[in-house]
Amino acid sequence: MTDTILTRQDADGIATLTLNTPASLNALSDAMIAALTAQFTALSTDRQTRVVVLRGEGRAFCAGHDLREMQAARQSPDKGAAYFSDLFQRCAAMMQMIPALPQPVIAQTHGIATAAGCQLAASCDLVTAAQGTRFGVNGVNIGLFCSTPMVALTRKIPPALAFEMLTTGEFIDATRARDAGLVNRISPPETLDADTRVLARQIAGKLGAAVKIGKSAFYDQQGESLAEAYALTGRAMVENMLWRDTEEGITAFLEKRKPDWS
Amino acid sequence: MTDTILTRQDADGIATLTLNTPASLNALSDAMIAALTAQFTALSTDRQTRVVVLRGEGRAFCAGHDLREMQAARQSPDKGAAYFSDLFQRCAAMMQMIPALPQPVIAQTHGIATAAGCQLAASCDLVTAAQGTRFGVNGVNIGLFCSTPMVALTRKIPPALAFEMLTTGEFIDATRARDAGLVNRISPPETLDADTRVLARQIAGKLGAAVKIGKSAFYDQQGESLAEAYALTGRAMVENMLWRDTEEGITAFLEKRKPDWS
Amino acid sequence: MTDTILTRQDADGIATLTLNTPASLNALSDAMIAALTAQFTALSTDRQTRVVVLRGEGRAFCAGHDLREMQAARQSPDKGAAYFSDLFQRCAAMMQMIPALPQPVIAQTHGIATAAGCQLAASCDLVTAAQGTRFGVNGVNIGLFCSTPMVALTRKIPPALAFEMLTTGEFIDATRARDAGLVNRISPPETLDADTRVLARQIAGKLGAAVKIGKSAFYDQQGESLAEAYALTGRAMVENMLWRDTEEGITAFLEKRKPDWS
Repeated sequence: MTDTILTRQDADGIATLTLNTPASLNALSDAMIAALTAQFTALSTDRQTRVVVLRGEGRAFCAGHDLREMQAARQSPDKGAAYFSDLFQRCAAMMQMIPALPQPVIAQTHGIATAAGCQLAASCDLVTAAQGTRFGVNGVNIGLFCSTPMVALTRKIPPALAFEMLTTGEFIDATRARDAGLVNRISPPETLDADTRVLARQIAGKLGAAVKIGKSAFYDQQGESLAEAYALTGRAMVENMLWRDTEEGITAFLEKRKPDWS
Repeated sequence: MTDTILTRQDADGIATLTLNTPASLNALSDAMIAALTAQFTALSTDRQTRVVVLRGEGRAFCAGHDLREMQAARQSPDKGAAYFSDLFQRCAAMMQMIPALPQPVIAQTHGIATAAGCQLAASCDLVTAAQGTRFGVNGVNIGLFCSTPMVALTRKIPPALAFEMLTTGEFIDATRARDAGLVNRISPPETLDADTRVLARQIAGKLGAAVKIGKSAFYDQQGESLAEAYALTGRAMVENMLWRDTEEGITAFLEKRKPDWS
Repeated sequence: MTDTILTRQDADGIATLTLNTPASLNALSDAMIAALTAQFTALSTDRQTRVVVLRGEGRAFCAGHDLREMQAARQSPDKGAAYFSDLFQRCAAMMQMIPALPQPVIAQTHGIATAAGCQLAASCDLVTAAQGTRFGVNGVNIGLFCSTPMVALTRKIPPALAFEMLTTGEFIDATRARDAGLVNRISPPETLDADTRVLARQIAGKLGAAVKIGKSAFYDQQGESLAEAYALTGRAMVENMLWRDTEEGITAFLEKRKPDWS
C-alpha cells in the first residue's frame, strides 16, 4: 500500500496512518479527504485497533487544502461555488469523525501544520510534535481567512492567541503550542516516531472498553451544564463498573498485582 | 471531634474541614461523602463562615473513591448496579454543592489528589498545593475511566492535557498543574498550612456579601452568551451598589481611608 | 481634537482611539462611555478603517468606572438604583460592540488596567502591554465585586486564576497575563507605541474583507457545537473563496508573487 496517498500500518493494536503526498506537503486534496474518511469509517467499527497515529511523509505534517485543485474548480459556470461548499462540508465531516472514533487519535506532527493541516492536528485527541514544528492558520496571508480551521483551534487554545494567529498569519512553534494547550509532547526529530509509539502503546495497554467509553463521554460532556455532564458521565461510570474486566482490574489493584485482561 | 472522619475547625470566619481517614488516603467512602454533604449543607446557610478550607490528614489530600467498599457492593443480586448508580449520584451532588456554596472554598492539597480526589480539588474555587503534590485521573490504569472526575477537571485545564491524563493515567506535578490552571498557589510543604491560611484570611477580610454575590454570579454567567452574562451580572452590580457597606467602601476609598464595615 | 475626552487619529487604515482623561486615570464616566459608544458606532460602518487601537493617555490605560460620579447618583430618591442599572447596561452594551466591530481592536495597555478598565482590555480582540502593566479586578477591595468585568475576563483566562483575582483583589503583571491568555505581546514601555503600530499595520495589510468575515465568524462559532460551528464557518469559507481578491491572493501565492489587491 506504500504507493497510495494514505498508507496504513497496523502493529500492536496501533493503526498508523501516513499522509503520503509529500510533493504537495500532504495537502488535503479531494482524494486525501476521501482516503481519510474511508480509513476513519473503517476504524469506527474496528475492534482490534486501540489507538490511531496520524503522521505525514516528507518535510511536513500537512500544509492544508490543495490550492491548485481549488483554483481549478473556478472554471465551472458557478465559479466553483457548489464545489467549494461541498469541499468544506466533506472536510469538516472528516474532521468531526476524529473525536467520534472509539480510539484515541494522536497527531504526530513535524515540519509545519498549517491552515487545514493545523485543523487536522487540533482535531486529534492528542498531538506530539518534533522540536521546531511550526503551527499556523495563515490563510489570511493569501486572502482566505482560516474560518474552518479556527473551529478546531479555538477548542484547544486560548482565544486571544488564536485570534492573533488568525489575523497576523504568524506561526507559533512547538514550545508555544505546548504551553498554549495544542501540543502534548515534544521530541527531538530523530526520536519523534519512537516517542509517539511509546505514548500510543501506553494507551493501547489500557482496558480498551474503558478508553472507548471514556473518550465518548469526554466529548459528550463538553459544554454541558455541570448537572447534565455529571448525569451522563455517571451513567458511563456505572456501565464501566459492571464489566468483568473492570472488576478484575480493581481486584488486581487491591491485591497489588497486574490485572488479567487477556 | 478529632476522632470523626471529617473534622471541622472554625477560626476568624474560616471553616477548615479535614478529611481524616489517613489509613485509606482519605477515600471518598459512603460515610465521607455523607459527612462532606452534611458539612456543605450546614455551610450553605452559615452566615458566620466567610471562607472554607478543605484539606486532608496524613500522606495525601484524597485518593478518590473507596475501592474496597465498591467491590463489596458487587455481592448484591444486581451485581452492584443500583449501588453504583446511587454512589455516583451522591458523589456528584456533593461535588456540585461546592460552587453553589456562598463561601469560596479552597482545596489545600498535598501528597496526591487522584481520581475523585482530583475531582474534589478541581471542584473547589481555589487550590493551593504543597510542592511535589501530584494530580492524576488514573482510574484507566485499573480499567475504570475517570469519567466523573473529568467533568470537574476539564472545566479547569485545557482539553488536550486532560485527555492525556485521562488516557495515560499519568500524573502532573503541582507546577504543571499551576501552569495549566488547576492550582493557584504552591508552597513548600512546611508552610502550606500557613500560606493557605493567609489566602483564606485575605478573602475573609473582604465584604462578605460582595464575595457571596460575586461567587454566585461567577458560576451563573459561565457558558452563557455575552448578552445574557452581562444581563445577570449587571443586576448583581446594581444590587451590590445599593448596600450601605458598599457605599461606605467606595467613600472610604475616595477619602483614602479604611472602610468601616463593622 | 486633543482637548476632547476621547481623541481619534487615523493613519494607514488604523484608527487610534485615546482615552484622554488622565487626571481620572481615564475612568469610564458617563461621558467616556458615550464617547466610546459613538466612536464604535461610527467604526461599525467605516470601510476605510481596518484596525482599531485603543490606548490611554497618562499613567494608566484605564482604572474602571468613575466612582465619584457613581456616588453622586445616590442623591436621587431611589438612591441611584435606576442610574446604576442604566450605567451598567450602557457600559455592557459598549463593551459588546467591540467583538461586533468589523475591525480587529487592539487594547494597548500600560500602567494599570483595573476593574472595568481590565474589562475593556479583555473585551478587545488583542492586547499589547508595556512591561510592568498590572491587571486587576479589584473592586472587591472596596466592597463592589467586579461582576461585569469578570464576564470579559473569564472569556480570556482560566477560571481558577480569574476567581483568585476577583476574590483577593490582587493584580497580575503583564507576564502572568500573557501566560494566562489575556495579553498577546509585551513591549518595553518606550517601544509599546511603535510595537503596537507594527502589529496593527501587519493586520491592516491583510485583505480587509477576509479579516472582517473571519472576525465575525470567530465570535459566531464560539460556544457552538462542532457541527454548528463548522456549518457557519463553512459558509464563510465559500463566500470568502468567491471574492476576486481571494482568487488573486491564491493565484499570486501559487505563482510565488505578491497579490495585487489594489
